[in-house]
Amino acid sequence: MDSAYTFNHRHILGIDHLSRDDIDFILTTAESFKEISFRPIKKVPTLRGNTIVSIFFEPSTRTRLSFDIAAKRMSADTFNISASTSSAVKGETLIDTARNIMAMQPDIIIMRHAHSGAPHMLTRHIDTPVINAGDGTHEHPSQGLLDMMTVREHKKRLDGLKVAIIGDILHSRVAHSDIIGFTKMGSTVYISGPGTLLPRGLDKMGAVVCNDIREAVADADVVMTLRIQKERQNDPLFPSFREYANVYGITRDIAALAREDALIMHPGPINRGIELMPDVADGPRSVILDQVTNGVAVRMALLYLLMGNK
Amino acid sequence: MDSAYTFNHRHILGIDHLSRDDIDFILTTAESFKEISFRPIKKVPTLRGNTIVSIFFEPSTRTRLSFDIAAKRMSADTFNISASTSSAVKGETLIDTARNIMAMQPDIIIMRHAHSGAPHMLTRHIDTPVINAGDGTHEHPSQGLLDMMTVREHKKRLDGLKVAIIGDILHSRVAHSDIIGFTKMGSTVYISGPGTLLPRGLDKMGAVVCNDIREAVADADVVMTLRIQKERQNDPLFPSFREYANVYGITRDIAALAREDALIMHPGPINRGIELMPDVADGPRSVILDQVTNGVAVRMALLYLLMGNK
Amino acid sequence: MDSAYTFNHRHILGIDHLSRDDIDFILTTAESFKEISFRPIKKVPTLRGNTIVSIFFEPSTRTRLSFDIAAKRMSADTFNISASTSSAVKGETLIDTARNIMAMQPDIIIMRHAHSGAPHMLTRHIDTPVINAGDGTHEHPSQGLLDMMTVREHKKRLDGLKVAIIGDILHSRVAHSDIIGFTKMGSTVYISGPGTLLPRGLDKMGAVVCNDIREAVADADVVMTLRIQKERQNDPLFPSFREYANVYGITRDIAALAREDALIMHPGPINRGIELMPDVADGPRSVILDQVTNGVAVRMALLYLLMGNK
Repeated sequence: MDSAYTFNHRHILGIDHLSRDDIDFILTTAESFKEISFRPIKKVPTLRGNTIVSIFFEPSTRTRLSFDIAAKRMSADTFNISASTSSAVKGETLIDTARNIMAMQPDIIIMRHAHSGAPHMLTRHIDTPVINAGDGTHEHPSQGLLDMMTVREHKKRLDGLKVAIIGDILHSRVAHSDIIGFTKMGSTVYISGPGTLLPRGLDKMGAVVCNDIREAVADADVVMTLRIQKERQNDPLFPSFREYANVYGITRDIAALAREDALIMHPGPINRGIELMPDVADGPRSVILDQVTNGVAVRMALLYLLMGNK
Repeated sequence: MDSAYTFNHRHILGIDHLSRDDIDFILTTAESFKEISFRPIKKVPTLRGNTIVSIFFEPSTRTRLSFDIAAKRMSADTFNISASTSSAVKGETLIDTARNIMAMQPDIIIMRHAHSGAPHMLTRHIDTPVINAGDGTHEHPSQGLLDMMTVREHKKRLDGLKVAIIGDILHSRVAHSDIIGFTKMGSTVYISGPGTLLPRGLDKMGAVVCNDIREAVADADVVMTLRIQKERQNDPLFPSFREYANVYGITRDIAALAREDALIMHPGPINRGIELMPDVADGPRSVILDQVTNGVAVRMALLYLLMGNK
Repeated sequence: MDSAYTFNHRHILGIDHLSRDDIDFILTTAESFKEISFRPIKKVPTLRGNTIVSIFFEPSTRTRLSFDIAAKRMSADTFNISASTSSAVKGETLIDTARNIMAMQPDIIIMRHAHSGAPHMLTRHIDTPVINAGDGTHEHPSQGLLDMMTVREHKKRLDGLKVAIIGDILHSRVAHSDIIGFTKMGSTVYISGPGTLLPRGLDKMGAVVCNDIREAVADADVVMTLRIQKERQNDPLFPSFREYANVYGITRDIAALAREDALIMHPGPINRGIELMPDVADGPRSVILDQVTNGVAVRMALLYLLMGNK
């Protein structure tokens, strides 16, 4: 990292906006915060008296909980608004909702929204720092960062790796953030999945699309599989779960094609037996729970860095 | 204010119960709390170890958030119960629900209920201080107080003003609290709206009903417009939104009839283009976001004063 | 209590797992915490920096609120997850959900689940201490403990008492915990209710089943009546509410059969006029609100004791 480096972002909207140095700096900061969660008293006064408001226009358990735990472990006050109870249902515009919340002097707003670009639009109308907690099929930067933190922790580097990402890339903001991030850090992302679930332009992002999952996984350092979203079952983009599992499910045999020390990753929640077989999910190479643990640390780092830049 | 004045309310049920001195005192207290929200560390220990329970039998985002932020900025512990998860659905009476909560020793209960008078009934059965956060079409005293605080902040007084309130008065507990409050403080409230949305007896409350919105707005010091509740669309009390906007929408032309320094106010959430045109909502006279900011300060004052009187 | 006694439980899954000494010790601990809720500053630093996550797969107002108040009065940070917003709806297994939460380093997990035994299964897969806040029709140990605390407070003992429990035993995890608990402490539980609402094997648990409610209540020291669950009305197990009230409702006449100093108890929420008549619910022998108050104290004790054993 350049010695003249300073972190100068006011918002965290996507991995796309972050430089290599930014990512390195965020991960190093997150690593230094990680041990707080393992203390008997899991709390530091860093953000005492700060007001952090999360607005989730899509349901979420784990991302919201992870941000909430991160904020409270830094002694911030947290407030959660969910779409179902929000003024959004009363016909208020997103910008009016955000301005109203801003008028209560929050320090940071965390937002998830079904529309790609919604948090970006927000930042053109309000001054408060915004963290994108997932916008449509676009980005989910804190997930991308926690994935990179987990790989760096185990591989001691983020460059020169082969990262295989398998499954529904089309609907996955996680995949999008990961492709941008790992590529930016000097690794190569190999993609495989049903043709109907692969967006165009993956090659322009630097990813290598493989028709055969075996080609994507072969000698990979990281095998990340994505959740098949059963909620989208009404509009089937592949024949059946069974067929999906047969072709794209990560079995022990498929996982064995990767390097011996390859990491198995999944953003959760897992459909066991569909995109990931239980023995692989629970096997010795799985770092799925490390991802969750690192999620809290990454979010502590993001909150801390944005507060420092206000 | 009389030098012998003391604030001696145990509950805040409506503006109707407050004297001029009470209102002056609450607003002065709120003004002194306002700057806390602009500090880097937005937190004072005033209500540390106090338990504040809000029970909302109607959905709310901003009022609940405002109370919650107010309470936590004073270091209270807050607990939110919403009707959808409440025992109310299991057939328990309101009084039993309240007594049960009271048995957990809260210091203050904040309640919103669809039935006018519900919080008043509560105070006859429990000892805990109650703040009415909106009861049916009756009162919403903290909103009335924040409206008065906002006007006083800009006009330096609350007497001798012409306050125009436009729209659906019938269903608006905000309008009700404002009419009582501004009239009590020595201003005159002028009302205009569709005949089907004006309750009887407004004149007995001291308000002046105008058939023509222009008459109500002419030379006004304050122009407050109310939300048309789209939720009530099934039972139309006016021909169409377009027609409503044409006659009662606050356009730049209508606003120009008021005094040059008139304030534009709205309790939110705004239906832009219906009761209020975007250029007026976002114009230099709009104090709509000041209302939101002052809402936190007023609620801090109410919590503080009620705790002091226990 | 044996002088060599130590509380050595890692989880609180049911009264069934607790010894007489355990129960005595928990209740004594709870008694010592009770006064905290009556202080002006209702907060002790005991659990500062501890993370307590409650996961409710069934709706709850009062149990969740009681745990939340207990935790915050001990300065813990609390996080609430409800089934409706949980990943459970996305098809994740319970164990995966729990492991994910555990990966965020909570100190204690509080769980309610519709399936009997769900919290027990959890403890075989995660290390975090678990408190069962109600599992199916099986147990609700914190309710059983608060019931025993309330009786001990008024009767100064838990042995040699006649405890009558009336109503829907079949669906009541509260009844189950109480039968086990009071029997274990040396009292005798008499049961009465519609035959369709009595499970088999009550006699093997040491309870005495009475066909006639009068026989169960006669000379009882405690009369506890259970909530008729109107939610189950679709599958009627008794002819009508009116008929239920006529036969099993606790009227003043029925209550008069008990000892003069008998306690009237109910786990709430009450269906007034069905299982319990208002004049009895609100009468001088009713300790129903004491149960609620003691619930906070018992839960403070459980959180404290589990944290001490980590």
